Amino acid sequence: MPEVIVYALQGRTLDQKRGLVKDITEAVMKNFGAGKDDVTIQIVECPRTDKAKGGVLFSER
Amino acid sequence: MPEVIVYALQGRTLDQKRGLVKDITEAVMKNFGAGKDDVTIQIVECPRTDKAKGGVLFSER
Amino acid sequence: MPEVIVYALQGRTLDQKRGLVKDITEAVMKNFGAGKDDVTIQIVECPRTDKAKGGVLFSER
Amino acid sequence: MPEVIVYALQGRTLDQKRGLVKDITEAVMKNFGAGKDDVTIQIVECPRTDKAKGGVLFSER
Amino acid sequence: MPEVIVYALQGRTLDQKRGLVKDITEAVMKNFGAGKDDVTIQIVECPRTDKAKGGVLFSER
Amino acid sequence: MPEVIVYALQGRTLDQKRGLVKDITEAVMKNFGAGKDDVTIQIVECPRTDKAKGGVLFSER
Repeated sequence: MPEVIVYALQGRTLDQKRGLVKDITEAVMKNFGAGKDDVTIQIVECPRTDKAKGGVLFSER
Repeated sequence: MPEVIVYALQGRTLDQKRGLVKDITEAVMKNFGAGKDDVTIQIVECPRTDKAKGGVLFSER
Repeated sequence: MPEVIVYALQGRTLDQKRGLVKDITEAVMKNFGAGKDDVTIQIVECPRTDKAKGGVLFSER
Repeated sequence: MPEVIVYALQGRTLDQKRGLVKDITEAVMKNFGAGKDDVTIQIVECPRTDKAKGGVLFSER
Repeated sequence: MPEVIVYALQGRTLDQKRGLVKDITEAVMKNFGAGKDDVTIQIVECPRTDKAKGGVLFSER
Repeated sequence: MPEVIVYALQGRTLDQKRGLVKDITEAVMKNFGAGKDDVTIQIVECPRTDKAKGGVLFSER
């Protein structure tokens, strides 16, 4: 309410993740009027072999 | 038909997962009239560093 | 915590949806030990022209 | 890279959506080091009959 | 098994959708060895006001 | 634009993944008129204990 899913490559640090969820939560509160505890975020990470852009896996770009 | 995705923190046992998919499948069959084999469920787990509520990672709550 | 997404064809009644979310919520509480208010569910519906099985749109099956 | 999906109830204005995608994009750029044009966001809205918390549809809360 | 979700802007014709699901299904069968009827695909469409790239809604690009 | 998510069991080889993303990307370009670099695909894999069909986990089928 809302739920946010972030599809990303593996490799971000804990600091990066801490910052991301803090800032996205504030973005949802500010713009959508959501209560702080109503915002849930899950980062769905994958290895570079499991994601592609332009038809090429990130492990081979 | 339908497909169900469950976004959850890591750490549930095999017994918990077995029970969850059995009960959700029955819920979809009973309420939506789906055939048993038409219900697929995937649990998308993540570590506590990759999920947040209220702007704070579960690893730090 | 967990968040459940149900991808389904349009056309279910309000009664069907009411029953589905009640039963899935109970399944998550019972099996995953989640608190009642921690379970959120969103049904993502689409017309029969937007979903396929076996390579054929449901509007043409 | 990353792709962000926001599952939300219908009813936000264009201004709210414009602000949300701007702020989430900046959050991803700042924290994950993503290029601006590499951030895509889709808001997946649904009517209040299609979303539930605590086992109760938002249309009945 | 697998389930494929395609997040896209509204506006494609029935012919475009018919071709897409046929070709994606064949891609999954050929590369992942899936049975034809085991491949389900849902296209999750949204209006141009609900999707953004580079922090700008498609309705304003 | 579009973003494609493939929910699948673990265990495919790099060759299988390379082929899948190449073919799905071509399917999206051909049918939806997308630019090559506008197509992103993420494969969301899980162990056989985390996915079910017909109410039974794949680890127990």
